[in-house]
Amino acid sequence: MKNERPVVGITVGDPAGVGPEIVVKVLFDAVTYESVRPVVYADGCVLEAALKTAGLTLKVRTVSAPGEAKFEPGTIDYVDAGVLDEPVPYGVMSAEGGRAGFTYLDRAIDDALVGGLDGLVTAPLNKESLQAAAVPFIDHTAALHARAALTAPLTLFLAHNLKIFFLTRHIPFRQIAAAITQDGIIEALPLCATYLRQLGVDDPLIAVAALNPHGGEQGLFGREEIDIIGPAVAKARELGYRVAGPVPADAVFHQAREGRYDGVLSLYHDQGHIAAKTLDFYGTVSLTMGLKFLRTSVDHGTAFDIAGRGIADARGMTAAIRAAGRYTLAVKASLHQ
Amino acid sequence: MKNERPVVGITVGDPAGVGPEIVVKVLFDAVTYESVRPVVYADGCVLEAALKTAGLTLKVRTVSAPGEAKFEPGTIDYVDAGVLDEPVPYGVMSAEGGRAGFTYLDRAIDDALVGGLDGLVTAPLNKESLQAAAVPFIDHTAALHARAALTAPLTLFLAHNLKIFFLTRHIPFRQIAAAITQDGIIEALPLCATYLRQLGVDDPLIAVAALNPHGGEQGLFGREEIDIIGPAVAKARELGYRVAGPVPADAVFHQAREGRYDGVLSLYHDQGHIAAKTLDFYGTVSLTMGLKFLRTSVDHGTAFDIAGRGIADARGMTAAIRAAGRYTLAVKASLHQ
Repeated sequence: MKNERPVVGITVGDPAGVGPEIVVKVLFDAVTYESVRPVVYADGCVLEAALKTAGLTLKVRTVSAPGEAKFEPGTIDYVDAGVLDEPVPYGVMSAEGGRAGFTYLDRAIDDALVGGLDGLVTAPLNKESLQAAAVPFIDHTAALHARAALTAPLTLFLAHNLKIFFLTRHIPFRQIAAAITQDGIIEALPLCATYLRQLGVDDPLIAVAALNPHGGEQGLFGREEIDIIGPAVAKARELGYRVAGPVPADAVFHQAREGRYDGVLSLYHDQGHIAAKTLDFYGTVSLTMGLKFLRTSVDHGTAFDIAGRGIADARGMTAAIRAAGRYTLAVKASLHQ
Repeated sequence: MKNERPVVGITVGDPAGVGPEIVVKVLFDAVTYESVRPVVYADGCVLEAALKTAGLTLKVRTVSAPGEAKFEPGTIDYVDAGVLDEPVPYGVMSAEGGRAGFTYLDRAIDDALVGGLDGLVTAPLNKESLQAAAVPFIDHTAALHARAALTAPLTLFLAHNLKIFFLTRHIPFRQIAAAITQDGIIEALPLCATYLRQLGVDDPLIAVAALNPHGGEQGLFGREEIDIIGPAVAKARELGYRVAGPVPADAVFHQAREGRYDGVLSLYHDQGHIAAKTLDFYGTVSLTMGLKFLRTSVDHGTAFDIAGRGIADARGMTAAIRAAGRYTLAVKASLHQ
């Protein structure tokens, strides 16, 4: 059973944020090692600072590759990125922080691509710091897509028993309606089905959320359900997918919680985010599907306002690592079939 | 203590829907009478049909006005609207159903306006049936606003400890962004504060939700937070109101649940609805504030698809009546100060 724990790379994210602190907090708990075999990607000085911030005592040991790690509770095995000689100041955007955080990710992707890691768990990066460092990617997912995409990548949120996909995400609210197209939905649904299967759901039933209040109420409050979403759902059914909807957005997540659907395709960021994070703010985990390996992530940012104070809540990281423990090898197996 | 229970008029809504069934189900439970003194507005044949559908035995007694009611568990006191001689078919839109449902509401408003009722609890109407009956109001709130508005009416959702207001509601998604204005927010916030006080919250702190993902992330994903919502919040603070925000929509409801805010102003229908109904689908209650009396309501529709089968879930009506029991006299007292 021990050997069935995936080897996961854990990147500590921007060292000016709460990432390193929540990583060491979770690794301080020996139970973490029951779900994964963790290798951290960081600089040594960043880990030492994080342990001091968290008020915890753990040994740290550098490894040049995941194969050298021993995965023993009490000692953090880490790949030394060799970027920083001293920690960057907490809570401050900086090119140094952006460069360091990106390098941790980059090294972990290297090791995952050569098979040294089964999957990744990532702590938050800061977009402004990445820009200041002239990193050519806006965020984690952009970098992961560029370096490790296998099929079209898609984010999946886990919260309680909900599995939520997103048709659109980081775009202005004003651009959402125009970004919802029949083609987009028809392309997304087979991916949702594939990715749910990779997570172990046989023959998944997916609900598509509606856009307008009450699902438009027969066109009274908007026609996207009639003109776009409904026809896309019908087309996906013709293609053999099990799809329901459009279901009014204030009902679809409740119904999924009750087990009526295996997954929900939400049309925009906040639609799915409000559901997941109102329900379980600290337990919501983000999974990036469609890569050559599973990547899970906390769904919060660098939290510069509280970085360095030792008060960061590590529950999101705990949930992200547990999700990695649960799903990484299933995804890996499905990709190698 | 018994005399402090409010006298509430309960309208059964469209007789083709689930309204009559859920009303009789809740009145079958004697505990209901511990929170309110209920007077039903219906036709006798509709109540008899509902009891048969629900498989329940209760006496019914007509009263010409609430003052004649005895409020005894086991007997439904009802004001006979005299519209229908026989029930309309379940699950079918009809002018007769629309006319009947509207008349129940109209009679209850009459009695509330002359002080016979302390407040109202309403079961669902069907918009298409109302239109077929040439009723000059699109829905409950339109009729209530026209006949019983005291100050600008505003809907408030209760779910768990959340109190959620809406800046916009039944408009197409595409029109939401343009409908969010500084003036609108600055007008809404004092109303939210007034209505929270009417419900017993002293010196309320209100959070305004953001519109764009991550609250726009400093303009990266939209500028409404910078150009509209932020300045409106600042202005409301200058006017002496306690207001926070804009707070990203996927965090604000969680934070309100934790007690950080007394109420949340959501910017559009689904923003607040997804939070409330994902959290507590059956317990979400709608309150109409700003009338000459409190009106509470279930937050679901006529459910024509399951009407007449005895399987309608009455938890929403139970919650609406309990909310009426809890808040009606507080609102009444505050209006008569």
